[in-house]
Amino acid sequence: MEEQVELVGRAFVDHYYLLFDTNRLSLASLYQPTSLLTFEGQKIQGGDDIALKFNQLPFDHCKHFITTIDCQPSSFTGGILVFVSGNLQLAGEEHQLKFSQMFHLIPTLEGSFFVQNDIFRLNYG
Amino acid sequence: MEEQVELVGRAFVDHYYLLFDTNRLSLASLYQPTSLLTFEGQKIQGGDDIALKFNQLPFDHCKHFITTIDCQPSSFTGGILVFVSGNLQLAGEEHQLKFSQMFHLIPTLEGSFFVQNDIFRLNYG
Repeated sequence: MEEQVELVGRAFVDHYYLLFDTNRLSLASLYQPTSLLTFEGQKIQGGDDIALKFNQLPFDHCKHFITTIDCQPSSFTGGILVFVSGNLQLAGEEHQLKFSQMFHLIPTLEGSFFVQNDIFRLNYG
Repeated sequence: MEEQVELVGRAFVDHYYLLFDTNRLSLASLYQPTSLLTFEGQKIQGGDDIALKFNQLPFDHCKHFITTIDCQPSSFTGGILVFVSGNLQLAGEEHQLKFSQMFHLIPTLEGSFFVQNDIFRLNYG
């Protein structure tokens, strides 16, 4: 059970940031209309608006480098909490930005998962 | 509803770090036997063991300075996700440490909340 949580969480993280770094609009498929994003304090609901937000970020290309991934089962049946820290490299920028992000993954009827909660923060310092 | 989530989340953060900085063993009261902590990658279950872990940290006094607090309702009825970033000052250390931490708060029958999930990471850099 605990191993499964780790496997799903880590596979999600790989998939999520690959999509983010190569095709941000496709991230809409990972969310549902109930999904909540808080991005640097800004609250957005629903997969379409969330993907739109990502697509409107003021940089064309980026690459996420993951430092840590922590996973726990949530109280919601089959739910998984994923906590990520890492660095974000923006095209044309010399220095990477540190970030932390958490996800709450909820199982779908089809046997997959969607992101119900997503909170992202840059770690300035 | 959304305002209530913010109020509860922020009040919890104030309370939690005050206890942490003044009486770490009393943090046990905020957890239950099902509670999960992942502290710098180490997994611990149950309020007693979690408070023991905090009490055994290799510093006597510390003070948390909170930079950001983001709150969202979780899928669990009445549950609240709280995402915190800030700085940690250890007694006798010149430099503060940056940290990120997330909590999943679950309502109790008594009308309060307990911490079901807690993930803590220092942000080195």
